[in-house]
Amino acid sequence: MSLLTVGTVAFDAIETPFGKTDKIVGGAATYIAWSASYFSNKVNIVSVIGDDFDMNELELLKKRGVDTSGIEIKKGKKSFFWSGKYHLDMNSRDTLVTELNVLMEFNPVLPDAYKESDILLVGNIDPNLQIKVIEQLDERPKLIVLDTMNFWMTPAFLPALMKAIEQCDVLAINDAEARQLSNEYSLVKAARKILAMGPKYLIIKKGEHGALLFHENEVFFAPALPLEDVFDPTGAGDTFAGGFCGYLDKTRDISFENMKRAIIYGSAMASFCVERFGTERLKTLSHQEIEDRVKDFIDLVQFDIVLED
Amino acid sequence: MSLLTVGTVAFDAIETPFGKTDKIVGGAATYIAWSASYFSNKVNIVSVIGDDFDMNELELLKKRGVDTSGIEIKKGKKSFFWSGKYHLDMNSRDTLVTELNVLMEFNPVLPDAYKESDILLVGNIDPNLQIKVIEQLDERPKLIVLDTMNFWMTPAFLPALMKAIEQCDVLAINDAEARQLSNEYSLVKAARKILAMGPKYLIIKKGEHGALLFHENEVFFAPALPLEDVFDPTGAGDTFAGGFCGYLDKTRDISFENMKRAIIYGSAMASFCVERFGTERLKTLSHQEIEDRVKDFIDLVQFDIVLED
Repeated sequence: MSLLTVGTVAFDAIETPFGKTDKIVGGAATYIAWSASYFSNKVNIVSVIGDDFDMNELELLKKRGVDTSGIEIKKGKKSFFWSGKYHLDMNSRDTLVTELNVLMEFNPVLPDAYKESDILLVGNIDPNLQIKVIEQLDERPKLIVLDTMNFWMTPAFLPALMKAIEQCDVLAINDAEARQLSNEYSLVKAARKILAMGPKYLIIKKGEHGALLFHENEVFFAPALPLEDVFDPTGAGDTFAGGFCGYLDKTRDISFENMKRAIIYGSAMASFCVERFGTERLKTLSHQEIEDRVKDFIDLVQFDIVLED
Repeated sequence: MSLLTVGTVAFDAIETPFGKTDKIVGGAATYIAWSASYFSNKVNIVSVIGDDFDMNELELLKKRGVDTSGIEIKKGKKSFFWSGKYHLDMNSRDTLVTELNVLMEFNPVLPDAYKESDILLVGNIDPNLQIKVIEQLDERPKLIVLDTMNFWMTPAFLPALMKAIEQCDVLAINDAEARQLSNEYSLVKAARKILAMGPKYLIIKKGEHGALLFHENEVFFAPALPLEDVFDPTGAGDTFAGGFCGYLDKTRDISFENMKRAIIYGSAMASFCVERFGTERLKTLSHQEIEDRVKDFIDLVQFDIVLED
């Protein structure tokens, strides 16, 4: 199978209670690709960067088998840059700087080789671009997974967002976004409303409080692993999504039962991501470490109850 | 086996986004007893009330097999009264009124028949009283479970609280309390510090985000059930503790593996509690409903991963 992701490749500068970084490589598609590369052997990226980018970072992705030929490099332009500072609880952060740079003229064009992807993971970008990506595919992928954020839920973008949501199979957003999109505080009610908007599956990411997968009248919950320290949460949601899609791509099975496993693998990948700044930890993982981490998740939640009836 | 609980039996007046109540029966020991009565056939309460209390409520508990003879009734005095208003998120609340009344002169004296209890669940009261309760038992119970709150972590009470904690087997507190007690933000670090204070087990209750059970280097997580609406969270933590201890008492097994099951049953009971005001929902449960609810928890978290190694 193959996994195509469209999203940002960027610079971040991050400050957490544990330290701060200069400009390091980030962006949703970067985290997604690193994470998915541990599962899928065909990961393609479509993105845009300036020629200020650290090209060695693309080489590292290529060495992991990621196809980066869909990343457009704009000569004389600067890459998207975001800087933020996390609060002590790591669940909230202040954005210090947002320089859109090349992102302002991002016009994703899929290379022909990408047009028959099995799984499409569209990162959090302008929903008009998300639709444009979907429309470029020769045939509908087996699975379209969509991320978005509150910014696109404003009147100017909401009609396009609703169209993109209608076309996806899996919408993956966080709890605040689910509440805003549905205008419901209860996540169960929010999920019902959002599933009625089109997606067959809804993933609600709750950060350190885990993730919920809704499908028809069923719901599955995966916790986040309790960690000594969350060093840097940047990219955890994208790493989760990358692991989720990578696992589905590897196992060639998009059933609800297999999505449960994919959520556990995605959660395991996210638990590594937050152990270091940026993508650092994702660069050195072994398959044994991933399997051991998944074992930690099994130990964390599995219990053995024989019901009386 | 037998379960003894010591704690408040009281009046509450509650306001939530869904409505408000006049004075209704509440108090930790009330919720604990209702919840435990679905599992243990010998639940004993030690508490104190005024003669303004609704004695029909005690009759209802007696009909469920709860021994209320350890509840002292102070003539001409008023019962403990608490009034609070929940915010929309249901995780935070403002206390509107606290009238300690009879609680100010609470001096728990165990009836002789209670002095050989197998499980002792000491609710959130002055730690000096908690110690006094423990010291009255003829022999050490198989399990002592202790609840407390941030109020007792102030300098005036902390030495007594530390002594009570040292003597318990299971400390059951919420996440904010665990952080305050340990002075650690990370719950993993907090748990390590708190286990070093004496308890063999630590339960950290996270409300709608579930509960963690720590023991030595192991950790177990149970989610809260995603609900349409949390109607009234009052007593959910006590209902959880009552179901936890009741299940352990019924199954006569205080191993870590069985505590996992007990936490699921406690979580199931708490999920019923929040569906109505006060103890209302706990009064009408059937065993079939409880088993069905536990099945919902199994469906919520169970997945099937075969590790590669």
